Amino acid sequence: MSGARARTFHSQSTAAEFAEPAAGTAERVFPSLAEVLVAARRLQGVARRTPLERSAWLSERAGADVWLKLETQQRTGSFKLRGAYNAVAALSKEERVRGLVTASAGNHGQGVALAASLAGLAPAVVFVPAGAPEAKKRRIARHGADLREVQGTYDDAHHAAEAHAARTGACFINAFSDPAVVAGQGTVGLEIVQELPGVRTVLVPVGGGGISGGVGIVARAMGSGIRVIGVQTEATSAMHASLAAGRVVSPPYGPTLCEGLEGDVDDRGLALAAEVLDGVVLVTEAAVRRAMRRLFQEEGIVAEGSAAVGAAALLEGAVEGIEGPTAVVLTGGNVDGDRLAGILAERD
Amino acid sequence: MSGARARTFHSQSTAAEFAEPAAGTAERVFPSLAEVLVAARRLQGVARRTPLERSAWLSERAGADVWLKLETQQRTGSFKLRGAYNAVAALSKEERVRGLVTASAGNHGQGVALAASLAGLAPAVVFVPAGAPEAKKRRIARHGADLREVQGTYDDAHHAAEAHAARTGACFINAFSDPAVVAGQGTVGLEIVQELPGVRTVLVPVGGGGISGGVGIVARAMGSGIRVIGVQTEATSAMHASLAAGRVVSPPYGPTLCEGLEGDVDDRGLALAAEVLDGVVLVTEAAVRRAMRRLFQEEGIVAEGSAAVGAAALLEGAVEGIEGPTAVVLTGGNVDGDRLAGILAERD
Repeated sequence: MSGARARTFHSQSTAAEFAEPAAGTAERVFPSLAEVLVAARRLQGVARRTPLERSAWLSERAGADVWLKLETQQRTGSFKLRGAYNAVAALSKEERVRGLVTASAGNHGQGVALAASLAGLAPAVVFVPAGAPEAKKRRIARHGADLREVQGTYDDAHHAAEAHAARTGACFINAFSDPAVVAGQGTVGLEIVQELPGVRTVLVPVGGGGISGGVGIVARAMGSGIRVIGVQTEATSAMHASLAAGRVVSPPYGPTLCEGLEGDVDDRGLALAAEVLDGVVLVTEAAVRRAMRRLFQEEGIVAEGSAAVGAAALLEGAVEGIEGPTAVVLTGGNVDGDRLAGILAERD
Repeated sequence: MSGARARTFHSQSTAAEFAEPAAGTAERVFPSLAEVLVAARRLQGVARRTPLERSAWLSERAGADVWLKLETQQRTGSFKLRGAYNAVAALSKEERVRGLVTASAGNHGQGVALAASLAGLAPAVVFVPAGAPEAKKRRIARHGADLREVQGTYDDAHHAAEAHAARTGACFINAFSDPAVVAGQGTVGLEIVQELPGVRTVLVPVGGGGISGGVGIVARAMGSGIRVIGVQTEATSAMHASLAAGRVVSPPYGPTLCEGLEGDVDDRGLALAAEVLDGVVLVTEAAVRRAMRRLFQEEGIVAEGSAAVGAAALLEGAVEGIEGPTAVVLTGGNVDGDRLAGILAERD
């Protein structure tokens, strides 16, 4: 690790100072800003430069100028295409012919499936938990992937994908800690600082730490003190708990709307988060439901649970010190119709 | 009128040859392709160049290569910003100081409200039917407009806006037959032919005929025989009936999900439609509901009723001769949460 950096940790009910991850536990392979810039070039014509749109409603609620980064409008319906395509583009000829395999809660799998297709490679093999949203599973298959459902959690799918890679020699595209994946997700941060150079705080969902790490790398490289705050739910708090413990731990997972944030972190993802995040806050599942409903009512935006946590954190006042331009990354919009219908029909 | 043009009219249950509108009934002031190109330049940095995305699902259903033009992702949630901003930009200094007034079922009003704000003008006065979706009314007000609700239909709001213009001298921005509005909407067609040069058929919703006219002007100017087919519902069939009659007629309007397509047409809008459309087909309200639900399930797209009519026409087989690249314009996504929840919860 590159040593301690002053961190501010903001959370109402869950404040905790991060311990440093124990020396030697983390392989330090973080992408650089240059790698994010290379990813941005590769993604031209592949991923959309999504809108960064001011929300009058959230600005009023937060008492600060709030902008929404609409990865809900990205191809495949989430930011995951960025990292997946960058990782595929970074493979050598020899690696490409070995085939691709990955594990996904649904969105990364769509990204890898489309990336393999765009790159003219053989269909990617994508392991998903059987309980993943139907919309996500259907779209993974429609992008041409070989979809394999696994009983159990995201972590079970992850182990199955690793076993497949070991057995067949296929290249495993890690959803969150592959450096090329992180660099690809970092292009979200690049677009934010290009379009909102005065940004003071970025709120970004945290699962394994891919997009938060990528955005954090860009923010740090700007050298202007941009805060990057990760957001999880109480039911998906692996990064929050691991940062507090200073090592990878597995807190109990609860039922969640945020399947994209579920699962354990790894040493590399944890080390990157410790390096580039200013804090991780937790929100409740109820706050996520409310945020999804209000985002639709007020802004006409369909955000999936995992994507709505940043807005939930603002609405709940979970992040202290919100001043000046604030960007909230809405990471994706892939939600089943039944679930959305239920949430839209609720009342406060 | 510039004389008869060979037309093919395709509809299963409602086939009718268009009569020519009677000579002298229409003031012939159609924008040219050059005016559409000027509008495209004006709209740079104001309106988004929205994605044109291939739908594997609709392509399979239609047996042709189907692309969706996602004006659902436009600023203000619909294409209406294009025409409204172009009309405001085309005003003289003298006209600008007189103020703006318009009538809208909801989307055009958002466009005019935002256009006035972006142009630094006084708040636009926007008359809407009181029954317009809450989301649309709220967003018109949030874009800074002076919102006036009118009891009755869109046509009542239209008359109230005209009376306001006559009384105050404010410039009335006609939602569909102002040539600058039509030119702005035509930029949707420009983007389609730029990105899909081989397009054979474009399906576009028809209310007063603004976007269908603008897209039709671009398609005709290409000189390559692109068919432009308008789509309405049986409950909002003013253009269909007027084309068949050869003059403006008011068919009975029924309850509809497609408030954006309601209301009478005028001589100018009718003359343009007769000139540039290859046909108008009708779909049922039930078909619109199904199309909205399937668009969400299959593609994760929220389309409002008025925007889903083109997909409904494809799903119902209402358009004959669909071959080769086909573009379907999804004009907007502004729908109330309760309505969407109800539609998503339905079953076939």
